[in-house]
Amino acid sequence: MYGLIGKMIAKPGQRDALARLLLGGAQSMPGCRSYIIAADPSDEKAIWVTEVWDAEADHNASLHLPEVGAAIREARPLIEGFGERCITTPLGGAGLG
Amino acid sequence: MYGLIGKMIAKPGQRDALARLLLGGAQSMPGCRSYIIAADPSDEKAIWVTEVWDAEADHNASLHLPEVGAAIREARPLIEGFGERCITTPLGGAGLG
Repeated sequence: MYGLIGKMIAKPGQRDALARLLLGGAQSMPGCRSYIIAADPSDEKAIWVTEVWDAEADHNASLHLPEVGAAIREARPLIEGFGERCITTPLGGAGLG
Repeated sequence: MYGLIGKMIAKPGQRDALARLLLGGAQSMPGCRSYIIAADPSDEKAIWVTEVWDAEADHNASLHLPEVGAAIREARPLIEGFGERCITTPLGGAGLG
């Protein structure tokens, strides 16, 4: 499996709108076993995105899905920048679809 | 919902054993919607633990479950320390049991 843990920084006042776009673009992506959007309670502009994929290739392919591309285009103007980003090797657990 | 993203550092050579213990202790915890154990490919001693719970109280209660308590007792001697730890407010996504 291939995982990502990343932090996204929204422009001021845009976090909720950005989270909605990320959630909307993330439905039924092939090879996606977990994709969770979370707000950071200690930073009103920050969003955590944690992802688990069957393989890195599935993640890369998702970026070319029409609905994901549309979400990325809509989201881009709401994003101020990016924080930490870690690649992980998921081993198992609960909640892996 | 209540989430945690945390990094655990295993003693040298103990990461696989520590991951197995964490996975074994994490079965069927009430209120747990996601609990994923991942290795860090850039640090041979590091494990990422990402968790989503219905509420903080469910997470706190899980620490008193007999099987979790047993896993914690077995795991403690394998742990060198802890890295980043962030509380999150999960908003939704895929893979939330």
